[in-house]
Amino acid sequence: MADDQSALAELHDIRNSIDNIDAAMIYMLSERFRRTQRIGVLTAHHNLPSVDPAREEIQIIRLCKLAETARLDPEFAEKYLAFIVREVIHHHEMFPRNSMN
Amino acid sequence: MADDQSALAELHDIRNSIDNIDAAMIYMLSERFRRTQRIGVLTAHHNLPSVDPAREEIQIIRLCKLAETARLDPEFAEKYLAFIVREVIHHHEMFPRNSMN
Repeated sequence: MADDQSALAELHDIRNSIDNIDAAMIYMLSERFRRTQRIGVLTAHHNLPSVDPAREEIQIIRLCKLAETARLDPEFAEKYLAFIVREVIHHHEMFPRNSMN
Repeated sequence: MADDQSALAELHDIRNSIDNIDAAMIYMLSERFRRTQRIGVLTAHHNLPSVDPAREEIQIIRLCKLAETARLDPEFAEKYLAFIVREVIHHHEMFPRNSMN
């Protein structure tokens, strides 16, 4: 019973940590979008391509390596990048001055 | 021409920032997964439910509010959480001692 109480307390504590991590993620994601928006403005203004497939390939390899160091499933790192790029494309369609990567 | 060169330099600089943000995200995501794994162990050990729908609803509302403060599209914050929970479920199926949220 006391053991269950202590498990519930730990559960509560861990969920607070998850909430903090999510808050940090939201702020980081906002900053990331601000950066791709600026790339969108620059590439539009200078007639540069807004997508760089070679860069995306390098990004995937780099993130997978980082994931290994962070003891995270590399497949997830790839999915993370795909998710972000998809969302940036979605925003780009709504606000054409975004860039993909 | 000099203007284009300076745009390319800025582009390179912004992409370096994006890479740094992504690296930070990978480490945060790894830490988040470690937390849900621990919840999985606790809930299995104490016969507690591993999913808490009420909590997920509170998480969505909280992240949407945070997104507004961070000047991020709240719809994206919701998508972020859905993506993470989906991935945690995917991991949970492979390694049953994960928790959803």
